[in-house]
Amino acid sequence: MYISIIGSGNVATHLALHLKKTGHKIGTVYSRNIANAKELASKVDSKAVDNITAINTDSDIYIISVSDSAVTSIIKQITFDPKLIVHTTGSIDINILARFKNYGVLYPLQTFTKSKNIDVSKVPFCIEANNAGVLQQIKELADSLSNSVYELNSNQRLQCHIAAVFANNFTNHMFAVAESILQEKNIPFEIIKPLIQETVDKIMQISPQQAQTGPAVRNDKITIDKHIEIIKNKDFKKLYSFVSDSIIKLKEK
Amino acid sequence: MYISIIGSGNVATHLALHLKKTGHKIGTVYSRNIANAKELASKVDSKAVDNITAINTDSDIYIISVSDSAVTSIIKQITFDPKLIVHTTGSIDINILARFKNYGVLYPLQTFTKSKNIDVSKVPFCIEANNAGVLQQIKELADSLSNSVYELNSNQRLQCHIAAVFANNFTNHMFAVAESILQEKNIPFEIIKPLIQETVDKIMQISPQQAQTGPAVRNDKITIDKHIEIIKNKDFKKLYSFVSDSIIKLKEK
Repeated sequence: MYISIIGSGNVATHLALHLKKTGHKIGTVYSRNIANAKELASKVDSKAVDNITAINTDSDIYIISVSDSAVTSIIKQITFDPKLIVHTTGSIDINILARFKNYGVLYPLQTFTKSKNIDVSKVPFCIEANNAGVLQQIKELADSLSNSVYELNSNQRLQCHIAAVFANNFTNHMFAVAESILQEKNIPFEIIKPLIQETVDKIMQISPQQAQTGPAVRNDKITIDKHIEIIKNKDFKKLYSFVSDSIIKLKEK
Repeated sequence: MYISIIGSGNVATHLALHLKKTGHKIGTVYSRNIANAKELASKVDSKAVDNITAINTDSDIYIISVSDSAVTSIIKQITFDPKLIVHTTGSIDINILARFKNYGVLYPLQTFTKSKNIDVSKVPFCIEANNAGVLQQIKELADSLSNSVYELNSNQRLQCHIAAVFANNFTNHMFAVAESILQEKNIPFEIIKPLIQETVDKIMQISPQQAQTGPAVRNDKITIDKHIEIIKNKDFKKLYSFVSDSIIKLKEK
């Protein structure tokens, strides 16, 4: 397909590179920052623009891949009638695009960093469209990109995004706290990496609720109190106590 | 070495099996539940006992691997003078063994489940001893078991255990909450597994604090508020809000 990319951030970059790799053509790359647009455009053999009115108007699909807070403003700037337009966010309803004729969503459920390679063919794409014909087109595009495509409505997609915040952002924060606690006693973060890998290996096989171990799920108050007493950072102290309570509550549910 | 195992739980089981595999001999397996003792003893060609007075008294090392709350009571029941005795817990001070002549700690920093295989040779062992000679013996044993051995004092080991609670128990809880949130809208947990794998792959390469993404670290209040509003479970709502605040605080630190 002939595609234009609106955005040049982490998602836009990985998506554009993978689109090119899978045989699609990129017409234009837009970014409000022309240097960023040029950087990405040069990698995918396309034209860089920093003004939406300069985007080519004959693409098969326009992919809006900007930060959530910029989506509304981007949409307002599009004055031509695109054949098909999608956004890539988890938490914005499909109806934000309702003033167009053919529209939908192509949400990759993954964390992207420009500097880190990722196999996009394994990324789950959540798709949605305003009618069956458009859904078919978006599905074809998604299938060409990934082996894992899910049809979800906006409500389900938002729920996925919330789950992703827990599974990625909050998990990563627990790693950051662990790192900080180890650093305090000059213990290398390396020491805990095998444990982290095993934590994830386990839940690839059994449900996380079944996999839960540790003082909280055992309601081992002596260890919990000892840990809370030892933790120096007041916020970490509260976090330890709060998450422990939450583990106990989920078990009792 | 000739070793006796006091305990038959997750850690005792994996440790005993790996000891046998690496060429050590297991004299006795003790458990207060004789069926459990027999089950493990049969796997490592040793004798099962449910009374500590029945343990052979000529082992080179006695490994106490019972739940934290049972350690004190076990120690009281040992009436002979062991050549060397260690415990395997993260949060108990080495001095709990101070009434013996030669004692120490052999703490495997990993999560063990009986039913799940694990490569013990990659598990970090934290060791400690009451004198240099004993440390040498425990180090030899640890080196025979694993490629990753750390000499840590009780204070550092406790800190490791706290870090492990964040990196494993609390992380796993975030996965459990994510699963529960997905189930609510009939979305399979599978959809989020590639994200979880990537979350961990990232911090194997870069520091978790650098790897942090998402609405909280961006201070994207619109998305945060939208998510909190959508979450139905009151405890998950509070957890979302609490961990988001903690991410913001750690960033500002």
